[in-house]
Amino acid sequence: MATSTLLFLPASDLPKIASAASVVVSITVFVALLCACLVIGHLLEGSRWANESIASLLLGLCAGLVMLLVTRWKRSHILTFDEELFFIYLLPPIIFNAGFQVKKKQFFQNFTTILLFGVLGTLISFCIISTGSYFLFKQIGITSLKIQQYLATGAIFSATDSVCTLQVLNQDETPLLYSLVFGEGVANDATSIVLFNAVQSLNLSHVKAMTAIKLFGTFLYLFFTSTALGVMIGLLSAYIIKKLYFGRHSTNREVAIMLLLAYLSYMIAELLSLSGILTIFFCGIIMSHYTWHNVTERSRITTRHAFAAMSFISETFIFLYVGMDALDIDKWKRSDASVGTTVAASGTLFALVMVGRAIFVFSLANFANCFRHESDDKIDLRQQFVIWWAGLMRGSVTIALSYNQFSTSSSKEGAFMITNSIIVVLFSTVVFGSVTKPLIKAALCHNWTSTNGEDAHSSSLEDIHILFPDNCRTSGNDSSHANPRSSLGMLIMHPTSTIHYLWRRFDNMYMRPVFGGRGFVPLLSSSTLTSPEGADGV
Amino acid sequence: MATSTLLFLPASDLPKIASAASVVVSITVFVALLCACLVIGHLLEGSRWANESIASLLLGLCAGLVMLLVTRWKRSHILTFDEELFFIYLLPPIIFNAGFQVKKKQFFQNFTTILLFGVLGTLISFCIISTGSYFLFKQIGITSLKIQQYLATGAIFSATDSVCTLQVLNQDETPLLYSLVFGEGVANDATSIVLFNAVQSLNLSHVKAMTAIKLFGTFLYLFFTSTALGVMIGLLSAYIIKKLYFGRHSTNREVAIMLLLAYLSYMIAELLSLSGILTIFFCGIIMSHYTWHNVTERSRITTRHAFAAMSFISETFIFLYVGMDALDIDKWKRSDASVGTTVAASGTLFALVMVGRAIFVFSLANFANCFRHESDDKIDLRQQFVIWWAGLMRGSVTIALSYNQFSTSSSKEGAFMITNSIIVVLFSTVVFGSVTKPLIKAALCHNWTSTNGEDAHSSSLEDIHILFPDNCRTSGNDSSHANPRSSLGMLIMHPTSTIHYLWRRFDNMYMRPVFGGRGFVPLLSSSTLTSPEGADGV
Repeated sequence: MATSTLLFLPASDLPKIASAASVVVSITVFVALLCACLVIGHLLEGSRWANESIASLLLGLCAGLVMLLVTRWKRSHILTFDEELFFIYLLPPIIFNAGFQVKKKQFFQNFTTILLFGVLGTLISFCIISTGSYFLFKQIGITSLKIQQYLATGAIFSATDSVCTLQVLNQDETPLLYSLVFGEGVANDATSIVLFNAVQSLNLSHVKAMTAIKLFGTFLYLFFTSTALGVMIGLLSAYIIKKLYFGRHSTNREVAIMLLLAYLSYMIAELLSLSGILTIFFCGIIMSHYTWHNVTERSRITTRHAFAAMSFISETFIFLYVGMDALDIDKWKRSDASVGTTVAASGTLFALVMVGRAIFVFSLANFANCFRHESDDKIDLRQQFVIWWAGLMRGSVTIALSYNQFSTSSSKEGAFMITNSIIVVLFSTVVFGSVTKPLIKAALCHNWTSTNGEDAHSSSLEDIHILFPDNCRTSGNDSSHANPRSSLGMLIMHPTSTIHYLWRRFDNMYMRPVFGGRGFVPLLSSSTLTSPEGADGV
Repeated sequence: MATSTLLFLPASDLPKIASAASVVVSITVFVALLCACLVIGHLLEGSRWANESIASLLLGLCAGLVMLLVTRWKRSHILTFDEELFFIYLLPPIIFNAGFQVKKKQFFQNFTTILLFGVLGTLISFCIISTGSYFLFKQIGITSLKIQQYLATGAIFSATDSVCTLQVLNQDETPLLYSLVFGEGVANDATSIVLFNAVQSLNLSHVKAMTAIKLFGTFLYLFFTSTALGVMIGLLSAYIIKKLYFGRHSTNREVAIMLLLAYLSYMIAELLSLSGILTIFFCGIIMSHYTWHNVTERSRITTRHAFAAMSFISETFIFLYVGMDALDIDKWKRSDASVGTTVAASGTLFALVMVGRAIFVFSLANFANCFRHESDDKIDLRQQFVIWWAGLMRGSVTIALSYNQFSTSSSKEGAFMITNSIIVVLFSTVVFGSVTKPLIKAALCHNWTSTNGEDAHSSSLEDIHILFPDNCRTSGNDSSHANPRSSLGMLIMHPTSTIHYLWRRFDNMYMRPVFGGRGFVPLLSSSTLTSPEGADGV
C-alpha cells in the first residue's frame, strides 16, 4: 500500500496507518543497513581480523542497541518476522547458490573422504552433542527440555559454517585441504538439515530401542528422495531449455525460468514433506552441470552472478537480524534464566562442539590416511587442525534450524535455546572468525610448498585414461592398450578415479545428449566462459 | 516454516498446520503456473494473435476455473494477498526496470511531443474520464460513489499499457512512431500515478474552486520532489561505486548494492509520502546513465538481465493474478450489482477511455505538427491512429492502482469498481491486444518506406555540433566556427536539439567526472557492451 495514501486517511483508520507505516519504516531501515553492511564489508576486504559476516553481526548489534535506546529499552528489533521468512524466502537462495556454485571437481575428487567427514562426522557430532547436552544440562540446572529437543539441539549445533576458513585458504596452494574443508561444509549442511528433519518427524514421546533405527531410516529416506526430486527437476529444466531453446528469443526468460524452477523444486519438496533444502541443493548442482550450458552466454553470466548476489543478500540479512536479535530484551526475559545459567549452557554447547569435532576429525582423518597411499596425499596433523578449526564456527543454518525448532513455542525453554544459539553463533563468528586468518597462516606456513597431493591424484586419473581410452574428449591415446581385466583392479586401487571415469562415460553417452551440457550445446558467441563456479572470486 | 516439521505436530496444532500447509500449496501452484506462463509465452512468440500478457491472463482464468471446480464454486483464488504485495514487492521491479532500460535516445529525442502526449494528454484523459463517469454512472444507476472515488477512477483508467503495440512496431522502420508510443507510455505511467497520489492526498469532502488548483499543486510537488529524490539516490549509487570501486573485488556486491539502493529509493519515497514509483523510475534512469558504466562488464550484463527478468516475473504474476481474480465469486457477490449494470459500467469506462484518448491524441498531434517543420517529421493521420490505438489497453498499473483505491474498503462500491477494472483490463488486453498486430500492420503498410524523420532530426543535431564545437567526444570540428549569437537562434529553431547539446556539455564537464558514466570509467576488459537498453530483444 502506498503509505502516502494511508497517511491521509481519516482518523478512524489510524491503527491501520500506524502498522503499515511501521512496516515501511522497518523495511527502509533494514535495507539501508544492508547497504551499509555491503559497503563496510567491502572496505574490510583486506582486513586481517574482520570479514563480511562479522561486520554484519556487529552492525546488527549496534542497530539493536540504537533501537533499544530509541524505544527506551523496550525492544531491539527494527523488523520482526516469523520463521516462514527464513525458510521460504531466505534459506533457499543461499542453499541453491551453494549447489549451483559448488566446485564439482574439488567436491568429487576427494569424495569418499568428504563423505566420511561430512556425513559420518556430522552423525558422530550429532550423537555427542545430543547426549552430552542431555547429561550436562541437568548438571547446570536445566531440566525442562524433552528428548526431542535434545536431539534437535544435536542437529542444530552440528551444522558448521566454514566460510571464514575457506576465505583464508588458497585453493591452489593447498588444494587437498581446500577440497576437504569445502566439501565437508557442503555435505555437513545437507546431513545436519536432513537429520533435523528426521528428528522432527519422529514421535519421540516413548523412546525405544527402535527409535535410533527409525531415525536412521527416516534420515536415509529423506536423503534419497529429496536428492532424487532435486535431480529430476534440474534435469527437467535442462530438457525444457534445450528443447525450447529460449535463447533464440530471450535471455530474460531463461534467467526467469531457471530461477522459478529452482524455487519450485524447493516448494514441491516442502509440499511432499521432504527436505526442501537438499532438493534445491541438488537441483543447483544439476542445473550447473546441464542447464547452465544450454543457455546463452549472457544468461550464464547473469545467472551466475544474480544467484550469488541473492544468496549474499540473504546471508547478510540473516547475520544482521541475528545481531539485532541478540539484544532482544523480550527473549531474555522470557527465557527466565540467570546470566550464569545462560553462559554455562552456551559454554557447554561450545565445549561439546569443540570436543565432538576433535573426536571425529582426528580419528576419521587417520582412518582415511590408511587408504591414502602416496605420502603426499595423506592428511597431516596441521591439516587436521585446520579442518577441526574450520568447523567450529556456527552460522546461518544453525540460526535457521534453531528458530524453526524453538520459536514456534513461546515457552521459556524455546526462548532460552534461541538465546543460546545466538550467543554461540555470535561468539564463534566474531571471536573465532577474527583470529582465523592469522591462526591458519601460522598453522600452514610450513606446509604450503609441500602439497603434491593434487599431482599424485591427477596422475592416477591419467593412468585411467591411458588404460580405458574411449570417446572421452580429454583422451587421445591409442585404444590398443585397453585391458579389461585391469578395470576391476583399477576400481579397487583407485575407486574414486574409476568411478569418476565411469561417470564421465555414462554422462557423455546418455545424459548430455538428452539434457545438454558442456560441449553438447553450440555456443552462441565466440568467447567461452568457465563454469558457474569459476575462479571469479566471491 | 518447514512444512515437514509441522505436518507431524500434535493434533492441537492442526489449525496452524492447515494454514501453513496451504501457504506452501498456494506458492507451489503459483510458481508452477508462472513457469507454465513463461513456456507458453515463449511458444507463442511468433504468433499473430497472442502474446505473453494474453497468455498469462488466459492461464489465470483457466486456473481460477479449476479452483472454482475444485472448491465447489467457493473461491477462485489459489493465493490471496493484500495490496501491500503489489506495492512493496511487485510494482517496484517493473517500474525500476522501465527506467533502467528506457531508451534514452528515443525518449529525449522527441521530448516535447512526448511530454505533450504523456503529461498533458493524460491530464486531459483524467478530466474526461472523471467527469464522464461522474455524470454517466448516475444514468446507469450507480450513485453511491464519492467525488474522490470518481477522481481516482479518472487516474486509474488513464494509465495505459502500450506494450502490445510496442512489440509490433519496429524501431528502425518507424523510429518517430516508436519513440512517441514508447515515450508517452513512460510519461503516462508517471503522470497517472502521481495524479492518483495527489487525489489520495486531498481532502475532497468539500469540493471548492480551490480544489482543482490544490490538486494541481500537489501533483507538481509530488512530481518534482519524487524525481529529485530518485535522481539523488541514483547519483549516490554512482558515486559509491565509483569511489569504492567494488569491481576490484566482487561483481556480486555491485549487483547487490545496485538492487538494494534502487529499492531503498522506493522505500524512502514511501516513507516521506512521496511517489515511490516516480522515484524508483528516475533512480533507474540515473543508474543506467552513470552507475551502470562504473561497474564491471559482468555486472553490467547481470544487472541488465536480472532486473529485466525480475520485472518480467512480476508482470506475469500480476496478469496471472488478475486472470484468477476475474472469477472471484466473493467479489461478484459483494459488488451486489447485476450483470447488466456491471457491463454497462465497464462499457461506459471503456467508451470514455476511447473517446478521451481520441480527443487528445488527434488534437495534440495536430498542435505538435505546427512546430514540426520538415514534412517528414510531422505526425500523419495513420501514425495518429496508431498512437491512439496503443493507449487503449490497460494493464498492471491500472490493476495496482485500482486495488490500492478500492480493496481497502470491503464495501460493495469497492468490489464493484475492482470488478470493472478487471473487466476493462481483461477485455482490452485479450481482445484489443490480439488484433493489434494485424491492425497496426494494415495501418502502417504504406508508411514504412516514407519515414525520414530520423534523418532530418539527426542532421539538425549535426548542425548543432558544427556550430558549437566543444570537448564533446562525438565532434571533431574546428572551433573557429563558433557563433554565440546563433545559440539563441538555434535554441528557438531547434529547442530539443539545443537542450540536448547543452545537457551533453554539462554532463561531460561536471557530472560524469564526479559520478562516472560512459567513457569516464576505464573498461576492465577489452570487449565493449551497449547500454542496458541495447538491442538485445526482450
